[in-house]
Amino acid sequence: MPMKKILVITGIRSEYFILRPVLLALQSSKQFKIKLAVSGAHLSSWHGNTLEMIKKDGLPIADKIDSLFMTNRETQRPKGIAALLYGLSQCVERENPDFLLVLGDREEAIATALVGNYMNVLTAHIAGGDPVYGNADDPVRFAVSKLAHIHFTIAKQHSENLKKIGEEPFRIFWTGNPAIDSIRKVKNMEWDKVQKHLNWGIKKKNYIVLIKHPLSSEKEEVYSQMKITISAITSFAQRNRLKIIGIYPNTDPGSYDILKAIEEANAPEIIRFYKTLPHEIFVNIMRNALALTGNSSMGILEAPFYCLPVVNIGKRQGGRISAGNVIFVEHNEKQITRALKRACFDQGFRQQIKKARNFYGDGRASERIINALSSIDPKDKKWLVKRKLV
Amino acid sequence: MPMKKILVITGIRSEYFILRPVLLALQSSKQFKIKLAVSGAHLSSWHGNTLEMIKKDGLPIADKIDSLFMTNRETQRPKGIAALLYGLSQCVERENPDFLLVLGDREEAIATALVGNYMNVLTAHIAGGDPVYGNADDPVRFAVSKLAHIHFTIAKQHSENLKKIGEEPFRIFWTGNPAIDSIRKVKNMEWDKVQKHLNWGIKKKNYIVLIKHPLSSEKEEVYSQMKITISAITSFAQRNRLKIIGIYPNTDPGSYDILKAIEEANAPEIIRFYKTLPHEIFVNIMRNALALTGNSSMGILEAPFYCLPVVNIGKRQGGRISAGNVIFVEHNEKQITRALKRACFDQGFRQQIKKARNFYGDGRASERIINALSSIDPKDKKWLVKRKLV
Amino acid sequence: MPMKKILVITGIRSEYFILRPVLLALQSSKQFKIKLAVSGAHLSSWHGNTLEMIKKDGLPIADKIDSLFMTNRETQRPKGIAALLYGLSQCVERENPDFLLVLGDREEAIATALVGNYMNVLTAHIAGGDPVYGNADDPVRFAVSKLAHIHFTIAKQHSENLKKIGEEPFRIFWTGNPAIDSIRKVKNMEWDKVQKHLNWGIKKKNYIVLIKHPLSSEKEEVYSQMKITISAITSFAQRNRLKIIGIYPNTDPGSYDILKAIEEANAPEIIRFYKTLPHEIFVNIMRNALALTGNSSMGILEAPFYCLPVVNIGKRQGGRISAGNVIFVEHNEKQITRALKRACFDQGFRQQIKKARNFYGDGRASERIINALSSIDPKDKKWLVKRKLV
Amino acid sequence: MPMKKILVITGIRSEYFILRPVLLALQSSKQFKIKLAVSGAHLSSWHGNTLEMIKKDGLPIADKIDSLFMTNRETQRPKGIAALLYGLSQCVERENPDFLLVLGDREEAIATALVGNYMNVLTAHIAGGDPVYGNADDPVRFAVSKLAHIHFTIAKQHSENLKKIGEEPFRIFWTGNPAIDSIRKVKNMEWDKVQKHLNWGIKKKNYIVLIKHPLSSEKEEVYSQMKITISAITSFAQRNRLKIIGIYPNTDPGSYDILKAIEEANAPEIIRFYKTLPHEIFVNIMRNALALTGNSSMGILEAPFYCLPVVNIGKRQGGRISAGNVIFVEHNEKQITRALKRACFDQGFRQQIKKARNFYGDGRASERIINALSSIDPKDKKWLVKRKLV
Repeated sequence: MPMKKILVITGIRSEYFILRPVLLALQSSKQFKIKLAVSGAHLSSWHGNTLEMIKKDGLPIADKIDSLFMTNRETQRPKGIAALLYGLSQCVERENPDFLLVLGDREEAIATALVGNYMNVLTAHIAGGDPVYGNADDPVRFAVSKLAHIHFTIAKQHSENLKKIGEEPFRIFWTGNPAIDSIRKVKNMEWDKVQKHLNWGIKKKNYIVLIKHPLSSEKEEVYSQMKITISAITSFAQRNRLKIIGIYPNTDPGSYDILKAIEEANAPEIIRFYKTLPHEIFVNIMRNALALTGNSSMGILEAPFYCLPVVNIGKRQGGRISAGNVIFVEHNEKQITRALKRACFDQGFRQQIKKARNFYGDGRASERIINALSSIDPKDKKWLVKRKLV
Repeated sequence: MPMKKILVITGIRSEYFILRPVLLALQSSKQFKIKLAVSGAHLSSWHGNTLEMIKKDGLPIADKIDSLFMTNRETQRPKGIAALLYGLSQCVERENPDFLLVLGDREEAIATALVGNYMNVLTAHIAGGDPVYGNADDPVRFAVSKLAHIHFTIAKQHSENLKKIGEEPFRIFWTGNPAIDSIRKVKNMEWDKVQKHLNWGIKKKNYIVLIKHPLSSEKEEVYSQMKITISAITSFAQRNRLKIIGIYPNTDPGSYDILKAIEEANAPEIIRFYKTLPHEIFVNIMRNALALTGNSSMGILEAPFYCLPVVNIGKRQGGRISAGNVIFVEHNEKQITRALKRACFDQGFRQQIKKARNFYGDGRASERIINALSSIDPKDKKWLVKRKLV
Repeated sequence: MPMKKILVITGIRSEYFILRPVLLALQSSKQFKIKLAVSGAHLSSWHGNTLEMIKKDGLPIADKIDSLFMTNRETQRPKGIAALLYGLSQCVERENPDFLLVLGDREEAIATALVGNYMNVLTAHIAGGDPVYGNADDPVRFAVSKLAHIHFTIAKQHSENLKKIGEEPFRIFWTGNPAIDSIRKVKNMEWDKVQKHLNWGIKKKNYIVLIKHPLSSEKEEVYSQMKITISAITSFAQRNRLKIIGIYPNTDPGSYDILKAIEEANAPEIIRFYKTLPHEIFVNIMRNALALTGNSSMGILEAPFYCLPVVNIGKRQGGRISAGNVIFVEHNEKQITRALKRACFDQGFRQQIKKARNFYGDGRASERIINALSSIDPKDKKWLVKRKLV
Repeated sequence: MPMKKILVITGIRSEYFILRPVLLALQSSKQFKIKLAVSGAHLSSWHGNTLEMIKKDGLPIADKIDSLFMTNRETQRPKGIAALLYGLSQCVERENPDFLLVLGDREEAIATALVGNYMNVLTAHIAGGDPVYGNADDPVRFAVSKLAHIHFTIAKQHSENLKKIGEEPFRIFWTGNPAIDSIRKVKNMEWDKVQKHLNWGIKKKNYIVLIKHPLSSEKEEVYSQMKITISAITSFAQRNRLKIIGIYPNTDPGSYDILKAIEEANAPEIIRFYKTLPHEIFVNIMRNALALTGNSSMGILEAPFYCLPVVNIGKRQGGRISAGNVIFVEHNEKQITRALKRACFDQGFRQQIKKARNFYGDGRASERIINALSSIDPKDKKWLVKRKLV
């Protein structure tokens, strides 16, 4: 039997880290031949140029598709999809893969689903059906699900959601979050090594991680929201002799405002920001953190696996099912402070998180995804033509 | 109260004919200021250059957005969306409208919905929720619904379908098909004038109309399917002393194959094809036709209003609710012939159609759309942020 | 020594026919590895889909770059270059060739020269330095020369022109027109075969070939100019019992107007138009024609090799050095008729052409181009950095 | 007489500062109606978002054209031209101006010249004919001249150069550098105000200005070259108790490497970098500087007007005629130091500069440009069709 060709589209560090265990498993399988189309922030030196990371992973690159316009305006994303669609169509026509594979809710996901739909290539989508709302990404995720041919969900409830919106059950595979697969595999590092990489003396369980992205529907307030966030969390850290490891935001409009607030944060002994961190370092930091804050989806999708309490600030994770580890607050210093206190020091709350149920996977998602792809015959038209849409 | 600015996106004759009564009503209203972004086939001389028609209608043009690549390959549509997204984002940023308005399931619909989503402009979509499947357009229609903020449906069942896929009820307005509004208003012309325009002597109720578009999932067979169609219908017409008025296909990949088969049709006394026809002429032709055949959505959505029997050939209208006027057949000469016979000469069938229920509107869709748009406050964030997606 | 990688960019039949002998020679050489980026009209079914021809020639295709927008408006070409630049940059980054090779004055030439300039890839350009003016292509040709690193000219005078505009002499190679190489190699076919291919009974030396393209600076008049041309030449042919073999125009804005005039030509016994013809057939038709008319550059660059008299109508070949075989006239029936009479029947004139000097090559251009490319070390920075521009 | 419509294309702070006096003069003239198409770095928050500056100048904006891809790879510029061509063609078709106006040698210049050429709009180009070589911009400048219809040169020698490359003399106007017009008009500010803006205590004639851009043909060495530069100049400043005011680089590939070296510069009491500075501040800084270093074209084109000695490091200004104020050195610490010493402290050299001849204008360029544009009838075809190209 000939190898099945899979073209994977990836655009940003955070999404790549989730995809990575699937890609490495595909790469080492004899059934599949994979190539990557790399776009967006991966190609930006301003975002850590994660292309190098992909190359180190030994994954073959089909094409580099520039799609990130250097602007903080709202035109950035639709024009970025324009570039992606043009470049990806060219790539897909040449590579002629059996499957397209993409994860999430960003520009790459919708561009891939559209190309697959119009060019008659089976499109497999990871992480559909998530009921989160409030950000421009969220409707996109559902639009992608309506276009994609194969669904790999990270939670059982998400599979149900896909059925509700009319997706045929045979297309839906509940696999869990692949991020967990690779988190599990990361070894505990000596703490010295972590500190050395950070170039910062920092103690285990003595720091909070901060990851904050802009929310499209509140773009005008992004800057002041980040100022409030930094102010609240820095004061809290100072009072409690904690430190804060911040991570740079994604590339969305408004991200420049966050970067501006980051630049203005002027307490290098309390808070430091990192453009990007190697996966192993990052996982070890998460394992030893006291809490996570900001509004990253990791708070909901991955933090339970670390038994990590989370203070989610603002509306960016509205609607998502959480394992009980997340305290939702508004951009209000008092609320943030109170929630941080509970997250960091309320032992009852912290104990309860350790027992909480994790909805998002058991570390075997890659395996399930590969089994599903193995079982699908790309020549069988039942996969290509969606004969029921509602 | 200031006028509400509406930017309408239109890409092809068939879709423009449906939108037109809405546009003319908006144009004459004092509450709204409309402009059009014109793209795709409207800008192609090969497709009748319908831009001129729009200009004659007196509608102001915001921008002309070239989006139709001259190729018969499957790259045509995703690359076309690329061009649309880039050009439309530029236009929307400058025009800064309160609403975007688009109809249907084509490139313009998805490009508009994406721009509206990422640029925070309320997007109103006409004709969502239609359960038709089989063509690349169909999943796109549902993807558009997941992105759009306001839904105007052409059938009650479609409104229900939108609720099923998680759209909030307050966003959904059942308005009916605007095409019926303008069909109703077209006056009966003297038949001589119609014949003169066609440059062909032809009698009322003595001809069949043929409109056939490619189906994305059967692109390779488009040519042979059109050959079969023309052969069957031409023989039938010859035997029964009928004539056939053919209309050129849309621009989708495979359309060139249909054009090729059209060029090879060599019976000018029986069958003639027209690139485009003025709306008034076209409506009068439909009113006086004996039957309609091919695979246009008009067979299902508009023909009931004309009480016109339809022979739908192939899978392009799968899943759509029909008023009982449509006979579905495969690309098989015998089946086509038998169905044409029934459609044209079975008086029982023809009588029954006259009494059948029309699901698709009463001619007041424009009015309802305008009332809905009047009632919506674009500053009210409830419209912009979709707080429930499933 | 490793093979030198050459990426060739081609966009239209006429240009491909000239390039072809070079490509076939490169393909069979052991020093070079070539790939083609194919764009524009090659990918259009409306223009004969010459992609198939390229495939038959066995040339490997690196990417298919859609760049032809289906419109007759002036936006067509700059927007086409936009698509070309995006797609070609992606291709060049992946292929990482030692040389880019392109011919002529069209969108592909300027896109290639820009990509080569900004991406630091040596760009070799065929046919620079031609002093022709009047069409939008002509300044482009010189812009390309200012950007390209290596020049292969088709005439000695063109080499001198390049020096005049500041190009360093070591970059300039006078090679002659590669078109002549392949014309020479085409065998004389049995005339029956030609007639069969044309599906038209036609006698040697009893027909005129008509090739007419739009002129950018007279776009508004293209239609009426073509009407005059067809009227004049058809009357002349009828009076003299000749036939006319017409060839479809290129894709430039205004080409639709020419096609419209072609469609309206209604004298199938006198004049017939062909979308595209295989090279062998075409060369045999040229060899046996009585004269060539229209405004194709072939009249000046290739007709001398056939000893063919030419009536050039309009301003499209202004400034070009001719071998004396060309009569220049305006779009004026009388002038055209008088010139055709001289071209077809003035034996003195016809004799003189046979003796005239051909400026444009001896059939060994491919050989010279390959020798030059062999001699160039792409690592030597002297080729990349143009240290003198005026 | 109706006003002449001029569409000006601008993409980056440095170029805008030169154009600005022309734009303000056009804006206040009753003969002209101007609009701006704004692109590139103007739309990037990372580059100071100079769009706001344009808005403050009261210039109407026709369209914002995103064209800057966020990458440090060589694909950035050709893909940027792609976006520019698409967006600008759309803008030009709608605005239908009598003239396009653009300055320099960057992406905007070539995109504008191509659009003007293919869309038959008269294109006026400022600063053609400059014989500088070594950077990717330089051949582009000449390509633009071959395409543009009207030339405004900043030096008499440049006008001669344009004639040499075949431009018809009637198209060439020697106007001088418009930058001088606005420099002249800037009032001397109180030094306190300058220091306040810089947020740095600094004395007149006690600092060096550093502006350094990447060179396309040496992209790989940009980082190390900038390290050497900073090291040499910082040591020199430290030894001589001087300070260094650095300005951020342009957006070209390699600029990220310069930014990286800037970030690593760790002597805030000696050297500080500014993203962008208001024009008035910048001019006052130049007036009171001890010397300028780096590789900005300002060193050659504007510094003579300030009687400012310049140390030009590397090959970026090769071929340009200088007023004798420039010392050219390689990326070599010793050479740089020696040259700085001479530039800052050799009183003979400094005196001589004050007397040197300025080739680049007298501060009346705007006036001459406007007079020329007034004198040109855009309907006269002699301007549109270049009847001589060599």
